[in-house]
Amino acid sequence: MSNKNYRVGIVGATGAVGQELISLLVARNFPLAELRLLASARSVGRLLDVGGKKVTVREATPEAFEGLDIALFAAEGAIAKALAPEAVKRGCLVLDKSSAFRMYADVPLVLPEINLAATRGHKGIIASPNCSTAVALMGLYPLHQAFGVKRVFFSTYQSVSGTGADAIDELEAQVQAYAKGQPLVHKVYPYQIAFNVIPQVDSFGADGYTGEETKMREESRKIMGLPALKVSATCVRVPVVRAHSVAVSAEFERPVDLAAARQTVAAFVGATLVDDPANKLYPTPLDFTRQVKCGVGRIRLDTALDNGLSFWVSGDNLWKGAALNSIQIAEAMIRENIPLRAS
Amino acid sequence: MSNKNYRVGIVGATGAVGQELISLLVARNFPLAELRLLASARSVGRLLDVGGKKVTVREATPEAFEGLDIALFAAEGAIAKALAPEAVKRGCLVLDKSSAFRMYADVPLVLPEINLAATRGHKGIIASPNCSTAVALMGLYPLHQAFGVKRVFFSTYQSVSGTGADAIDELEAQVQAYAKGQPLVHKVYPYQIAFNVIPQVDSFGADGYTGEETKMREESRKIMGLPALKVSATCVRVPVVRAHSVAVSAEFERPVDLAAARQTVAAFVGATLVDDPANKLYPTPLDFTRQVKCGVGRIRLDTALDNGLSFWVSGDNLWKGAALNSIQIAEAMIRENIPLRAS
Repeated sequence: MSNKNYRVGIVGATGAVGQELISLLVARNFPLAELRLLASARSVGRLLDVGGKKVTVREATPEAFEGLDIALFAAEGAIAKALAPEAVKRGCLVLDKSSAFRMYADVPLVLPEINLAATRGHKGIIASPNCSTAVALMGLYPLHQAFGVKRVFFSTYQSVSGTGADAIDELEAQVQAYAKGQPLVHKVYPYQIAFNVIPQVDSFGADGYTGEETKMREESRKIMGLPALKVSATCVRVPVVRAHSVAVSAEFERPVDLAAARQTVAAFVGATLVDDPANKLYPTPLDFTRQVKCGVGRIRLDTALDNGLSFWVSGDNLWKGAALNSIQIAEAMIRENIPLRAS
Repeated sequence: MSNKNYRVGIVGATGAVGQELISLLVARNFPLAELRLLASARSVGRLLDVGGKKVTVREATPEAFEGLDIALFAAEGAIAKALAPEAVKRGCLVLDKSSAFRMYADVPLVLPEINLAATRGHKGIIASPNCSTAVALMGLYPLHQAFGVKRVFFSTYQSVSGTGADAIDELEAQVQAYAKGQPLVHKVYPYQIAFNVIPQVDSFGADGYTGEETKMREESRKIMGLPALKVSATCVRVPVVRAHSVAVSAEFERPVDLAAARQTVAAFVGATLVDDPANKLYPTPLDFTRQVKCGVGRIRLDTALDNGLSFWVSGDNLWKGAALNSIQIAEAMIRENIPLRAS
C-alpha cells in the first residue's frame, strides 16, 4: 500500500450519490490530499459538510479537473459524456457511476470483488455498473465461481432512491398525504408509488425490455466475462426508500450443492450470508441499508432447473450500487499498485 | 340457466374474505333464497350489512349447515377441516378458499375459466386455489393454450391483505407512526413491512421453499392438468394493501409469437390486456384492486429461454384470489347445470 494522498473531485456533489461519496470517503479514511466538490452552476457557492468542515461547491467545468488524481462522477450520463473526457485529458482517473460509458469496449466495467484486473491498462475512464446488477452479482458471482453460471432469471424489488432525491421526496410526500387523508399526487413516477409497485424502471426499448432490464443483461455478461450468458430480467419499483433486492434463479454448468453454495457465498468478500429460514433469517432491504456488503439468503435448489439454485439478495443501491463501488475501485487500484494514470 | 334461488352460507363471514363474499354476492345478484352468516362463537350476535339489510351472525356449528345448498368457506384450514365434512354430510356444496383440501385427489381445485369440468362428479368439496396462483394463471393459462407451457418462473409482489385484516392494520399503523415520527412496531410480520419487502410468505419447508411457493408449484400443475410442469417460485410480501402481482418467465413447447400471445390473453375471459409500454401502460396492483379480471401486460420474448415469454400480472387477491373465485365456481356450475349435490 502506497502512503500517497490523492486529490479527489466529486462531480454531482450535491446529489444523493454525491452526498454518499463525501460521507464514505470520510468514513473510510480515504487518503485525501484534497476533496474538490463540483456541481452544476446552480449549486455553486453552496457549502457542504466534509467530516465537520464546510467546503464550497465549485462549478464542474473542464478546468475544474486541473490537478486532480481522481474524479468520482455521480452525475447523469449526459454530464459524464461532456466532462469525463475533459477530466481524462487533464490526467485524471474518472470513476463514473452513470451508464454513459459502461458498454464501451475500451472502458472497464468493474465490481472490484469480481474483475479488478480489468482496470489494468485503462484509458482514463472506469465505469461502475447499474445498481441492480451490482447487488445481484454479489450473490451470483461466488456461485458462478463454484458451479459456472449459464442462465439466470432476475426479478428486482428496487427502492425509490435509485431514481434520486426527488423520488424519495415523492414517496415521503405521498405517505404524509395518506396519513392526513389528503390526495396522493405523483410527478416523478407515472403512477402512485406508495402502496403500489410499478413494473417499469427506466424507459422501454423496442423489444419490450426497459433500459434497466437490458443493463442487467449486458452488464452481467461484461463484468463476469460471459458474453453468451443467458439473462432474463424484470425490474420493478417498490415503495422502499433505500436498498434494492433481487430474486434470482440461476442454472449452472456443474452439479450444485447447497452446503458448498452457502460456503462460497459466506467466503465471498462482497456478501454477507443471512440464510437460516427456520429462524426467519434472510436479508431485507431495511437490514441492508448502509451496509458495505450485500445480504444473500434463501439459497435453495431451484425446482425448475437442473443444476439450479434460487436465492435472494438485498444491498444498498446508493452504496454498493453506486458511491461505495466507485470508492472501492479506487481503493483496490491503490492497494494493488494499479496505475491511476491512463496508459 | 336455472331460475332457482339458492340457500347460501358463509363460514368466516366477519373476516376480510367473508366481507368480500357478502358484498360480491349482492353486487353480482347471486340468486339467493337465503344468506346465512356463520362465524366463531366470539362473533355470534354481530350484525353485518347485506345489501342494506342487517343480518345476525350465527355460530358455525355442524347443525348450522342444515338446509343450505352452498357453503362458502372463508375460514382457516383447521376450521375448514372440522366443518366442511359436516356441511357435506348435510347435502351442502362446500366451496373452500383454504388450503386444507386443495391437493386431495378427490377434491377438484378450480379456476372456472380453466378447469370447470373438474367440478363434475365432485364429492361435496371444491377448493379455490391460493391467491398468487389464481392471479398468475390468469396470465399463464391462455398462453399455455396457445403455446403449451413446460417450465415457469414466478416472482411475486404480494399485498398485506393476503395475510388478513390484522396485517392491513399493521401496515396502516406503521405508516401512521412513521408520519408522526413515532417508532414502527410489528407483530403480524417478523419484520417491519412499511418501506420494506419480506421474502417470506407462509412458513418454510425443509427444502427451503415457503408454503406459498410450494402451493404455486403444486396448484399450477393440478389446475392446468400438467403434473410434470416445472415451476420455480419466489414469494415476497410488499407494502401494498391489496392486489398481488407476479413477474413470470415461461418456456413453451411451441414457437411463441408476440401478436398471437397478446391476442390470446385479450380473448381470455379472466384477463384484461394492458400492454402498451410506449404509453407506460401495464397493470399495477392499485389499478387492479377490486377488478373482476386480472391485468396482464409487459408481454415480451424472454431473453433467457427458447420459445419463452416474460410477462406481468396484477390481480385482486381478495377477489380472484379468494372470494370472487368461489362465487364464480358456483355461478358457472349453475349456468352449466352441473349438480351442486355431491354424486
